[in-house]
Amino acid sequence: MLDKKQCMTSAAPAPFANWMLDTNDVTRVFLAASQIPDLINIAGGLPDPSTFPVQKISEISARVIRDHPNETMGYCAIEGLPALRGAIAARYSTTTLKLTAENILITTSGMQGLELIGKALIDPGDLIAGQFPTYLGALDAWRPRQPRYRNMDVHALDFDATHEIQGAKFAYTVPNFSNPTGQLVGAQRRQELALAAAETGTWLVEDDPYGTLNYDGSLPSSVLALSAAQLPSRAYDGTCVYLGTMSKQIAPGLRVGWAIASKEMIKALTLAKQGSDMCTSGITQLITLEAMNSGLIEDLQPNIVDLYRKRRDSLCAAMTEHLSDWFDWDTPEGGMFVWAKARDKRLDTDRLLTLAMEEKVCISPSSVFDALGQHRSAIRMNFTFNSEEKLTVAVQRLARATKRLIEETE
Amino acid sequence: MLDKKQCMTSAAPAPFANWMLDTNDVTRVFLAASQIPDLINIAGGLPDPSTFPVQKISEISARVIRDHPNETMGYCAIEGLPALRGAIAARYSTTTLKLTAENILITTSGMQGLELIGKALIDPGDLIAGQFPTYLGALDAWRPRQPRYRNMDVHALDFDATHEIQGAKFAYTVPNFSNPTGQLVGAQRRQELALAAAETGTWLVEDDPYGTLNYDGSLPSSVLALSAAQLPSRAYDGTCVYLGTMSKQIAPGLRVGWAIASKEMIKALTLAKQGSDMCTSGITQLITLEAMNSGLIEDLQPNIVDLYRKRRDSLCAAMTEHLSDWFDWDTPEGGMFVWAKARDKRLDTDRLLTLAMEEKVCISPSSVFDALGQHRSAIRMNFTFNSEEKLTVAVQRLARATKRLIEETE
Repeated sequence: MLDKKQCMTSAAPAPFANWMLDTNDVTRVFLAASQIPDLINIAGGLPDPSTFPVQKISEISARVIRDHPNETMGYCAIEGLPALRGAIAARYSTTTLKLTAENILITTSGMQGLELIGKALIDPGDLIAGQFPTYLGALDAWRPRQPRYRNMDVHALDFDATHEIQGAKFAYTVPNFSNPTGQLVGAQRRQELALAAAETGTWLVEDDPYGTLNYDGSLPSSVLALSAAQLPSRAYDGTCVYLGTMSKQIAPGLRVGWAIASKEMIKALTLAKQGSDMCTSGITQLITLEAMNSGLIEDLQPNIVDLYRKRRDSLCAAMTEHLSDWFDWDTPEGGMFVWAKARDKRLDTDRLLTLAMEEKVCISPSSVFDALGQHRSAIRMNFTFNSEEKLTVAVQRLARATKRLIEETE
Repeated sequence: MLDKKQCMTSAAPAPFANWMLDTNDVTRVFLAASQIPDLINIAGGLPDPSTFPVQKISEISARVIRDHPNETMGYCAIEGLPALRGAIAARYSTTTLKLTAENILITTSGMQGLELIGKALIDPGDLIAGQFPTYLGALDAWRPRQPRYRNMDVHALDFDATHEIQGAKFAYTVPNFSNPTGQLVGAQRRQELALAAAETGTWLVEDDPYGTLNYDGSLPSSVLALSAAQLPSRAYDGTCVYLGTMSKQIAPGLRVGWAIASKEMIKALTLAKQGSDMCTSGITQLITLEAMNSGLIEDLQPNIVDLYRKRRDSLCAAMTEHLSDWFDWDTPEGGMFVWAKARDKRLDTDRLLTLAMEEKVCISPSSVFDALGQHRSAIRMNFTFNSEEKLTVAVQRLARATKRLIEETE
């Protein structure tokens, strides 16, 4: 006779949702890298912890909790603290970009901004026009909504913005030093995107985590600003949704970001956020506000930019010495990454990752940035986290791995 | 000739996702209540801010940021800080409930725990067996996944757990002082649920925000513990998912909660969290850990329980004096709410809310807790936020509103 308890406990658990079958687990492959001694990891996208203003944030946190106990320790409004929403609105407002607190939603990290856009706009099968290769996290955020993707190559000579975004629920672009390619979308293309979004009614998601990491020159206007310039007489009500984050300006641990959009879109994102985490911590929101108001962000900026510019230059110098036989790349004007494309398109960078890990260096193969599966022969290298010396050693190791790959395929 | 710019800006924005059409906006109706002077709000579910340990948390925050800059200000592991995961595992472990850090996911609030379960388990049309009336926030969290619901009345005399949860992706229960009814699920029913979950493979979500707000006696074992007791010899790998939160133990502003489940489920929830907000702030996680390790939670508990017990008793005394002609209720043994059912089932508590707002008291009508639309003649009253005096006045006002409703319907 069957033991009833055993019988009962033997039922298989109900299955997970369908989207989970389709997921990548490369992030956890990378996490394994942290277990290998002496490995140099240039695969990730981490800031250098030496840039964190530890003492200042420590003091600010104690002060804002003490001085604002209800705002920090109670529930906040779903949309965020009014004062922080107002400060973000003021920071981005110009004579033609008119923003009030109602145009702002505070998000629990830039990632949550992406997730909320997916929740608010995507039904299964809806189309996203994306600039591939693209940010891995955006694909993660939208996968549970089961969208379709179409490539939108904003750098193509024959780019036709209206044609590219027509029929999509939204277009996704990272105009400032795109992850992974580091490329800047020029002023003309930004203007075309802003006009096409208005013409078609397609939402245009402008993700800007890297705009402040700008090493060589001034930036073109944001797509949001160009969108607003079409109707400068009123509060912003266009179809651009701009996403910002404190992760690269102060520290990722705050998990504070923001969306800037029409009031209508902010209401929709708020409804989505209500069911995601109800509200962002008042502690981290008030730390952010105080860091903005005290000028801390502006104080930090020059040092961060100088540090990362030097590291970018060291990485590129080492690449010129050790990798230029096999790869092409453009020196990025900003951001956190160099994108190197193999001259020989048959070079499999997934396989290169395996050999590179054996040589104790970890890079990101292009496959992970591509929902469309078209990019298999490029790599992304981060230059913000490691010292100049380590970056040079990393490139030497990668050159050894590349040599081995070439030899094993010949 | 048409001006091209004007023409372009006239396109209607692409529509929002379908689930948003189906949403309730009662939360924002309630927010309007905060604009009415002298209104007493007993609709919400807020803790009393006087219970927040402001000075201690202020000190702890400064210390943890200073002493652990990388953990607080950098990115954390998606699953949460290992030390906090370990501390939660230790807190719940017993001789038969064997937990390690791998059984724990740190969530950005209890709400996020609910959201991640929906993401990990629900495809559109999947079935949830719910204990209705139920927590409004859970319905908000799952609405974007477009589930179906079936009522599971754990208090019914003829309750058959296996029959009730069979065919559902998961069953949802708040066994300790359920929101909104304040009812406790007894030991026998918990055992039946645990066995049925194992027998059917249906996941059993045990949401426990209120377990520490226990005023009169000891609690039955958690469903998680009963589930584990079936196979006490190994680390927990059953189909119960337990959700906890710091919101009622320290303060909601931390936005820190946790899920306890099998390693397999924790991996799935982690994948879901990766695309939601990547990780919970290390600042709030380390504040939570330090509050646990320093004994702060245990120190706070008796005062919170005493304060809320007195308020419950005052509310119920005033109800006995002013509302017993029209309503029935049980005095809840814990939690934050009294659930009062109209004797006359034709009494429309949505309409009562309108009249009550005119009398300057705000209550929650039963309609907002019911995805199935069956409960229209009850109200939920919160007793944790307002003083005993204000609770008494609130009940007097509600009695006037009820009289007016009776008169206008006669």
